[in-house]
Amino acid sequence: MDWLKQKIRSEGRVIGSDIIKVDSFLNHQVDPETMVAIGQEFARRFAALGITKVLTIEASGIAAALTTALEMRVPLVFAKKGRTAQQAEGVYSTVVHSYTRKTHATVTVSHLYLGRRDRVLIVDDFLATGEAALGLVDLCRQAEATLCGIGIIVEKGFQEGGRRLRQLGVPVESLAVIEKITPAGLVFAEGVPASR
Amino acid sequence: MDWLKQKIRSEGRVIGSDIIKVDSFLNHQVDPETMVAIGQEFARRFAALGITKVLTIEASGIAAALTTALEMRVPLVFAKKGRTAQQAEGVYSTVVHSYTRKTHATVTVSHLYLGRRDRVLIVDDFLATGEAALGLVDLCRQAEATLCGIGIIVEKGFQEGGRRLRQLGVPVESLAVIEKITPAGLVFAEGVPASR
Repeated sequence: MDWLKQKIRSEGRVIGSDIIKVDSFLNHQVDPETMVAIGQEFARRFAALGITKVLTIEASGIAAALTTALEMRVPLVFAKKGRTAQQAEGVYSTVVHSYTRKTHATVTVSHLYLGRRDRVLIVDDFLATGEAALGLVDLCRQAEATLCGIGIIVEKGFQEGGRRLRQLGVPVESLAVIEKITPAGLVFAEGVPASR
Repeated sequence: MDWLKQKIRSEGRVIGSDIIKVDSFLNHQVDPETMVAIGQEFARRFAALGITKVLTIEASGIAAALTTALEMRVPLVFAKKGRTAQQAEGVYSTVVHSYTRKTHATVTVSHLYLGRRDRVLIVDDFLATGEAALGLVDLCRQAEATLCGIGIIVEKGFQEGGRRLRQLGVPVESLAVIEKITPAGLVFAEGVPASR
């Protein structure tokens, strides 16, 4: 995915020592053709796993999850934020902490759309602490669905999310892993993380 | 769009006298091929307007906005909820009221991704009171962008949103207009609304 790293390098905006914003093409403004290419790549990497459903969390995971689901010819489910289990009947519910926003969000998926016969691929745009993805993993566990893999567009390799997800024993594929953010620019990890 | 009305009729779940849930294929679980067909239809209906950007609001507008933007070969921008203008620098900001949730949400778009040279198509999944779409219209106005049209998947014709949007003087295209929800089922409007 050298083209993606190149795009992150050229269009990403570094803020301070640990924030990289890629909202010109990934998660505020979205370049549709980039998303199609990302969806094709995820579909290729997770092709052999009999995936029945792509699961993501609103809002910025939806675009890549949609193109992945389209390529895999399966439905997408996006977990909803901000409703409590009391407000929404018949849902699996978990709480996700956001360290950047310093908030907690209740995240739900209807019982109707995730169940024990599902073989799930989780897709999200960013992996930092892993909180969002682990929330989705928790929803899969509650639904007794089979978690088959996790696809991430941009992993911040210097935060703990990658390690936390790779302990789950399923393939975790990050299309670009940023090892560090320096004043001179971004340093990407080469190849795949060893712990995969 | 008879196929869409048929799908809403067969898969939609009516709750009480004014709620129709289509979350099996539109806004919780998402059927990617349905979204591609919807995007193609919006692109066809708004083809002649020189659209440069598709604008929606997170979260449930993103899927249709993405497929529309893909077909039109322009970027998509989704307005973000829950950040105030103080928290996010360099943004246009407006407040959207949700009557169903009885909440207010601050909605923002970065100055970087909407501007006076843009010709904007607004896309959203549902039109009821029109609050969300009018919030997006307000963001366009602040950005001095040209609002060229509004595409809605499902309009609840018995609420005031359609009338409010059609006063703006731009084409408003709803793929399915529900005229009323009766115990016997849904009644769709035939043809296009007269005020268009």
